Amino acid sequence: MTVIDISAFIGRLATCSGETILPFFRTSLTIDNKGRSDFDPVTEADRAAEAVMRRLIKESFPQHGVVGEEFGNENTDAEYVWVLDPIDGTKSFIAGFPIWGTLIALTHRGVPVYGMMNQPYIGERFAGDNKAASYRGPSGERKLGVRRCAGLQDAVLFTTSPRLMNDADRATFGRVESQVRLTRYGGDCYCYAMLAAGQIDLVIETELKPYDVSALIPIIIGAGGIITTWEGGPAYQGGRIIAASDPRVHEAALKLLNS
Amino acid sequence: MTVIDISAFIGRLATCSGETILPFFRTSLTIDNKGRSDFDPVTEADRAAEAVMRRLIKESFPQHGVVGEEFGNENTDAEYVWVLDPIDGTKSFIAGFPIWGTLIALTHRGVPVYGMMNQPYIGERFAGDNKAASYRGPSGERKLGVRRCAGLQDAVLFTTSPRLMNDADRATFGRVESQVRLTRYGGDCYCYAMLAAGQIDLVIETELKPYDVSALIPIIIGAGGIITTWEGGPAYQGGRIIAASDPRVHEAALKLLNS
Repeated sequence: MTVIDISAFIGRLATCSGETILPFFRTSLTIDNKGRSDFDPVTEADRAAEAVMRRLIKESFPQHGVVGEEFGNENTDAEYVWVLDPIDGTKSFIAGFPIWGTLIALTHRGVPVYGMMNQPYIGERFAGDNKAASYRGPSGERKLGVRRCAGLQDAVLFTTSPRLMNDADRATFGRVESQVRLTRYGGDCYCYAMLAAGQIDLVIETELKPYDVSALIPIIIGAGGIITTWEGGPAYQGGRIIAASDPRVHEAALKLLNS
Repeated sequence: MTVIDISAFIGRLATCSGETILPFFRTSLTIDNKGRSDFDPVTEADRAAEAVMRRLIKESFPQHGVVGEEFGNENTDAEYVWVLDPIDGTKSFIAGFPIWGTLIALTHRGVPVYGMMNQPYIGERFAGDNKAASYRGPSGERKLGVRRCAGLQDAVLFTTSPRLMNDADRATFGRVESQVRLTRYGGDCYCYAMLAAGQIDLVIETELKPYDVSALIPIIIGAGGIITTWEGGPAYQGGRIIAASDPRVHEAALKLLNS
């Protein structure tokens, strides 16, 4: 790989994608969309931001591959492949809630080695490289670390929505939900950031795409957490995913998910 | 009333309460709470912020009354009474999600005449006086205005959680939910701010206290929206509340809530 500060480059991807997305956020507060009945701010923002990031990557790393939600796969056999989701949490975005994020992952031979979740409206970034994870935002700059949690009875669980699950998965999820201290819905990528920040203990979801989860893996692991499939395998291919702050919570939840 | 710029004074209440609350938000990112098992950041922040606001009000308006979540009622027979909720959305606060707010209302003979929702982490404020409503935050300064919505089939509905409703209310709520385009859960005061900002169409909740809703009324009405009880009466005493962007949506929902 070229000698280049990869975290500075990813910071540039975040800055440029954020500047591209923000004019489309809460467009009802602007007049840009007046009279345009076909105006779909989230799709336009998604596409514009992914195009910007792809252009920057091609300029600096022409040999790298790219996987993105909007423009598909390019050169995915390359040693290094970028995995991009310009707006994770489109329903929050449309409703004006600032709990969506831009997900940027760099994978090496398929495994995420660096990830960032960027929330440009708030101006906060969560980043990790599997060894450490960090936050930068309104509260300054901090290291991220998960919190301890002795078991499900103490755990705060998040899922974006049980309605996104098929009937069988929802029933299985319900077994875990019935054991935890508190369940909350909504949040998409923001849930994983809060798990890395030591605010919550468990995220359980289904039907994630690789671009929904790749960037979050090096952040969760870097913060000392665990993220796997429901079967306990690697999470980077997506599917049914569980992230936990504490191995005891992960193990207890996995038992219920597979019983 | 003393000749004083009331919106500047409310801005000062927001600034001081925000500065008091922020050190307690995402305390896992700080080391302040190490070794204190009895540390409850949301309660401590709530009490400290309400105390700060009460002190400022007493200094500037000793003749005014105050109603607050934490320290009860004082002088509520006064012509002007302040209604305060330092942290609306405590579950979001605890989980680290920035979709809680500080609610500050000024009521005149019981009716809210000025309201503000302050989100100090993001640095955004939503304010209204029943005649107009405004936003100040990362996107600059803007007038707030609701959007048009022809009927329930086009409406985006929010409620903090159907689990907060009793069985009868939940069944009634379900009749509206089955007719709308999209329902989302969570958000507390943030839902009402987004309705005033023209991002969503409908908020339906139950068992609200006066301090949960008073500050939001002049914002919703100032932005051109409607906020009433499920029976269509004034909302400032709390209870079962419906807020709508468009009279057509309000009327259609009220029919289902009372059928």
